[in-house]
Amino acid sequence: MEAVTSPQQESYGSISRGCQWLKALPNKCCDKTMEIARKTKKLGQDDPRRIVHSLKVGLAITLVSLFYFFEPLYDGFGDSAMWAVLTVVLVFEFSVGATLGKGLNRMLATLVAAGLGAGAHCLASISGRKGEPILVATFVFIIAVITTFMRFFPRVKARYDYGMMIFILTFCLVSVSGYRDDQVLEMARDRFSTILIGCCASLIVCICIFPVWIGEDLHKSVAANIGKLGKFLEAFGDEYFKVSEESNENNKSYLQGYRTVLTSKSSEETMANFARWEPGHGPFGYRHPWKMYLKVGNLTRDCAYKVEALNTYLNCKIQTQAEIRGKIQEPCKRVSLECSRALKEMASAFRKMILNRSAAMHIENSKKAAEELKSLLKTSLWEEADLLEIIPSASVASLLMEIIECIEKISEAVNKLGEAASFRKSNATVLPELSDSIQQETVQQDSNTAMPAPVPHCVIIMSE
Amino acid sequence: MEAVTSPQQESYGSISRGCQWLKALPNKCCDKTMEIARKTKKLGQDDPRRIVHSLKVGLAITLVSLFYFFEPLYDGFGDSAMWAVLTVVLVFEFSVGATLGKGLNRMLATLVAAGLGAGAHCLASISGRKGEPILVATFVFIIAVITTFMRFFPRVKARYDYGMMIFILTFCLVSVSGYRDDQVLEMARDRFSTILIGCCASLIVCICIFPVWIGEDLHKSVAANIGKLGKFLEAFGDEYFKVSEESNENNKSYLQGYRTVLTSKSSEETMANFARWEPGHGPFGYRHPWKMYLKVGNLTRDCAYKVEALNTYLNCKIQTQAEIRGKIQEPCKRVSLECSRALKEMASAFRKMILNRSAAMHIENSKKAAEELKSLLKTSLWEEADLLEIIPSASVASLLMEIIECIEKISEAVNKLGEAASFRKSNATVLPELSDSIQQETVQQDSNTAMPAPVPHCVIIMSE
Repeated sequence: MEAVTSPQQESYGSISRGCQWLKALPNKCCDKTMEIARKTKKLGQDDPRRIVHSLKVGLAITLVSLFYFFEPLYDGFGDSAMWAVLTVVLVFEFSVGATLGKGLNRMLATLVAAGLGAGAHCLASISGRKGEPILVATFVFIIAVITTFMRFFPRVKARYDYGMMIFILTFCLVSVSGYRDDQVLEMARDRFSTILIGCCASLIVCICIFPVWIGEDLHKSVAANIGKLGKFLEAFGDEYFKVSEESNENNKSYLQGYRTVLTSKSSEETMANFARWEPGHGPFGYRHPWKMYLKVGNLTRDCAYKVEALNTYLNCKIQTQAEIRGKIQEPCKRVSLECSRALKEMASAFRKMILNRSAAMHIENSKKAAEELKSLLKTSLWEEADLLEIIPSASVASLLMEIIECIEKISEAVNKLGEAASFRKSNATVLPELSDSIQQETVQQDSNTAMPAPVPHCVIIMSE
Repeated sequence: MEAVTSPQQESYGSISRGCQWLKALPNKCCDKTMEIARKTKKLGQDDPRRIVHSLKVGLAITLVSLFYFFEPLYDGFGDSAMWAVLTVVLVFEFSVGATLGKGLNRMLATLVAAGLGAGAHCLASISGRKGEPILVATFVFIIAVITTFMRFFPRVKARYDYGMMIFILTFCLVSVSGYRDDQVLEMARDRFSTILIGCCASLIVCICIFPVWIGEDLHKSVAANIGKLGKFLEAFGDEYFKVSEESNENNKSYLQGYRTVLTSKSSEETMANFARWEPGHGPFGYRHPWKMYLKVGNLTRDCAYKVEALNTYLNCKIQTQAEIRGKIQEPCKRVSLECSRALKEMASAFRKMILNRSAAMHIENSKKAAEELKSLLKTSLWEEADLLEIIPSASVASLLMEIIECIEKISEAVNKLGEAASFRKSNATVLPELSDSIQQETVQQDSNTAMPAPVPHCVIIMSE
């Protein structure tokens, strides 16, 4: 039975709720602030380069703003000097490649559009007072339509999208504003020089203070993705063959690392597009084969799809009985482990830009184990068992064999890339355990020094 | 034996090569032009909205440029009027959602930054001639650093990245240029009003002339992806069970349609981000559950990974003998076909925003077929055969069973989305063959009319 409340009681209730809400407000604000602080800390810890980048942007903008205060420079450009500040804000990106790409796009587009705009203005001004706006409007319309359509071409979109936008912008700016005063050429010149100053300031700060080379990021990311598959396969054997005994869902997170590989395509493509703008630096020479990274990335993803299929068998409802699984356990584990070693070694050598053929040895080993597995499957060890129960284990075995093929393809692509990018030659086997620690050291060095250490020549001579 | 060439002969050779190159030049240019023309035509044919968009951009820019020519308006804003043209170029995007998102970001960021910038300028001007540049520079540095770092927050990056950039830009513009003349507030006001004019012009043209709703694109793309998996499964049964007889690689392209689903994640996320800016339109109401589309998309991709695994068995080297395959052919084909029907019906109903439960019927049918398949696998029909040869077929059978589970999950998510977005109710079975033709008609209608036809109310009442 519901209690009947009088209007006074109701209003009293709503007031008390309001009071409670007001009392809770400071706590809520405090919690929210703490949460934001925690997130900020995490963002900074995850990638300290973010903090450095923010400081760099602040520095570049402040420098160019101060330049605005110097009387002699300001008198030269007048109000156009503001374009320099604007350019820094618009062009300064996280990586050198992106900044350079945007800067070059902006400069080139401004130069061409300023010239064309001035030409259009001169042409229009001949046609007299009445014809001028009509002619200018026609030019603007045609240029805007053509340029906007050009932005749909995939190649143009990937590399020159920003330039196309700046082209329309500057063309309008010069040809339309030219109608107001006759100093069109002067304006075009001012706009170009201030943009040049802004771009140069951005590039100098971006390259000279802790530069972020997106090409290096792409290189590390492709290597890391190969390594992630290796990590999964390393753990898979143990996990699968003890799954019925202790099926603890909690500490399986290390098995999920490969999932980011499945959706890495677009980020890799973006990185490769930016990387192509970067000049040669450290071990990455001029015309480094960035496109081949995409091929290695695609093959890694194909392998990741198979790993995804393998992963479903870890949580499969119908499981092969442990005794039957035990029969194929040894060769399966060996295939998985050798594949894992091949991948991890490939990743480690690739990361360090070494042409390491020892992965091929592990692939050979895994093939041998796969042959054993095949002959085991052929024998009639299975006859007494139920086929439905055998299927999961049999599928795992067949997937592992397919993964060997995938790894072989990745290895080929990595070797081709290594030859094209003239990686160092080395025949030594790099133990994954050892290489991991070396790797970590290298990362630390990379993030501490402004430029990645160039490859010492003596090593090349010694190993060749 | 090599012929010895004299220097004269060599120079003659290089001249003749040069002549040949010059002669071939017009042809080459002609070929290149033809290729570009062909590509342009294809781009336009693939999506005619691209041509419309280009014309719309041209129109909007020309309109705002003409506005610049009107003396009374120009006298009100002076040179700031140019910001209106700039805004149109920068803000006008392909879809309404993107244009609205950029426009609102730009307006809001300009308003806040103009206010803050004017405040910073006033504060700095109190501190005298010498302190002013130092104070302004400090403000600019702090604002730039904080705002740049905020752009790394994933949520901010997804929705307010452009706004953050414009915030720094306007703040610098107002606070720094304020140093030069004391009309800071006037400048802030002018900048905001011209940007408002530019945004409004862009939005009016974008929404009123053949609008492209990105939400609708997302809706169609998610539906199409589900349909692509259905198409693969429809063809898979026939293809797999006749593979050894006539293995023609050429006409298998229709089996590859699902591959775009594998890498659709990032484009779906971008579309969902833009769609959230769009106002209610046609059947997509205010607060349409765009986030739930991402969930359906993720489940579709999970299913696509399984389909990818299935696809490898079409080109597998080791194939089960035709006789043995024949034993499971009938139920396998039935599972595949029923799955395909469920997916195609789901896609078709989803696209038309109908809550259609008939997919559940096909899922039930496929489950029944799967049970038959299981009991077939349990029987000892296989005992005489080699396990290694059985594995591919057995794996196919097991994958098909897993796909049923995936489809059930997709169906659940689609139904939840349908309820949240209040789709129409219908219990009628939509035949995929019929629905395809309806679908094509709907697309044509959609692209012909400016607005998608609103859902007729009588239908809702009748079907409920």
